[in-house]
Amino acid sequence: MDKPARDFADHRIETADLVVNYLREGSGPPLVLLHGWPEFCRSWKKNITALAARFDVIAPDLRGFGDTRRKDGKPAEKTTAGLLSADLTAFLDALGISRVGIVSHDVGAYVAQTFARFSPDRVAALFFFNCPYPGIGARWGEGSYLPEAFYQYFHQWPLAEKLVGYNRDTCRIYFSHFLHRWSVDQHAFDDDLEMWVDNFMKPGNLTGGFEWYRGALAMRLKWIKEGAPKLDPITCPTRVFWGDSDSVCPAEWGDRLGDYFSNLKFSKAPKSGHFVHYEQAALSNAEMLAFFTPLARGAAWA
Amino acid sequence: MDKPARDFADHRIETADLVVNYLREGSGPPLVLLHGWPEFCRSWKKNITALAARFDVIAPDLRGFGDTRRKDGKPAEKTTAGLLSADLTAFLDALGISRVGIVSHDVGAYVAQTFARFSPDRVAALFFFNCPYPGIGARWGEGSYLPEAFYQYFHQWPLAEKLVGYNRDTCRIYFSHFLHRWSVDQHAFDDDLEMWVDNFMKPGNLTGGFEWYRGALAMRLKWIKEGAPKLDPITCPTRVFWGDSDSVCPAEWGDRLGDYFSNLKFSKAPKSGHFVHYEQAALSNAEMLAFFTPLARGAAWA
Repeated sequence: MDKPARDFADHRIETADLVVNYLREGSGPPLVLLHGWPEFCRSWKKNITALAARFDVIAPDLRGFGDTRRKDGKPAEKTTAGLLSADLTAFLDALGISRVGIVSHDVGAYVAQTFARFSPDRVAALFFFNCPYPGIGARWGEGSYLPEAFYQYFHQWPLAEKLVGYNRDTCRIYFSHFLHRWSVDQHAFDDDLEMWVDNFMKPGNLTGGFEWYRGALAMRLKWIKEGAPKLDPITCPTRVFWGDSDSVCPAEWGDRLGDYFSNLKFSKAPKSGHFVHYEQAALSNAEMLAFFTPLARGAAWA
Repeated sequence: MDKPARDFADHRIETADLVVNYLREGSGPPLVLLHGWPEFCRSWKKNITALAARFDVIAPDLRGFGDTRRKDGKPAEKTTAGLLSADLTAFLDALGISRVGIVSHDVGAYVAQTFARFSPDRVAALFFFNCPYPGIGARWGEGSYLPEAFYQYFHQWPLAEKLVGYNRDTCRIYFSHFLHRWSVDQHAFDDDLEMWVDNFMKPGNLTGGFEWYRGALAMRLKWIKEGAPKLDPITCPTRVFWGDSDSVCPAEWGDRLGDYFSNLKFSKAPKSGHFVHYEQAALSNAEMLAFFTPLARGAAWA
């Protein structure tokens, strides 16, 4: 059995803007885990213990997600990758950590890439479970993809909070769609569905997630209109482990990763959808350890 | 005041496949009113009485909408314009009516065009309140339009019935979004909102509407991928009266109507959104009478 989530203690630390909630386990070189949507720090519950044997594992709730909140009491508003990357900088500064390995997924992958571009000296290495990266380009807007992508546009409207947040049942109905649709194993989230509902029914948490889509809309529409932007590649050691059956972010979209990462190892994760780290936790943990452990013995974190 | 909807009697008639529910008022040349989504026969409540002074006004519920149901008891399934056009043929046959004027809106506009192409000899003239026609082409899939269009893709999933149909409140929340968002006057539907909720909470009615989007998806994606298809123009007298502030089907999209209708008069309806016939009922009634009355004096219905 996986170690239950309640065994991880919540920690809080203040930055200029936020009170950041995070989990922290183990010791060794620091490894930050950045979650996606619809997720939160405990989405990493099946990974933290394995990684904590060799690393100082730090899993924050992103702004507006989980229990990370603005100090001014205002709700999250039009959250962008740039803002979340600045949040990460402030969070690491507050913890007194200069250099980290980053494991990321979904929204977290945008944050990791932006952070790596702004602060390359603070990134030892990057591990992605799927990787929404600029090379996906106009494929976000392809007609055949639009049914899958409805939520990216639904989340633009206050309707989304009203309908999904009507009560626990509607919240469960909504998130069940994604947890099932985006997994190979239709029972993968059976034991944790109520934890998901608990999380998103916390005041402000639905809006917190939806504001990511509101903030990211301009970037998404630019990619759809203009195609993949040209960027200098990220040069640190990079590992992408992408679910072979991810319907919302298909592994085939990884075809241009080489244009954006110059030190890349890519492979598909077998029998897994969008939530590889959760659905194939043991394999994911082995892959993360195999990637980060040799780097930790070298100069990556120095 | 408008005549209240309960003053219109419901009628039922059987076709091979359906029991069709319809309203019928007045006498004169037959005029069929074809509603859209999210609508039903009583969406024409503000128009029927005015038209009935000179015409035999017939407003059916489309398959899966309102109270029109399959005789075999099965739910509507992947409804297409071709199927709804065949339903109209069977309905008119059952009524013993050979030739009609058609007023249509939204989904109804697809049906009217398909019917006019298949059975041009049965159509005296066409009046459209906005007109989703093939010339809109790839604009259905433009990035900047996708937030507006979320529902076209949300409706593809069983999630839609579960979430919207959770109870009367969620149903009200959902349809309020569209009735408000797509109207200029934010109070336009205040008096009838509960009638809308009553309608869509009838068993099968949410699915009935969503199945239109499921059935129409292939056509929509083809237009998005391949652009506007070439078709011979519809030649009967055609009037398009398009809300100047229709956000879901912008009047600017009427720019290619001339390629698809060879006997066309187009103008924008002032101060109205998507539901012109409802929001600007008096003006709409005057426009419909001005269009159909001279034709009725001629040979159009002969």
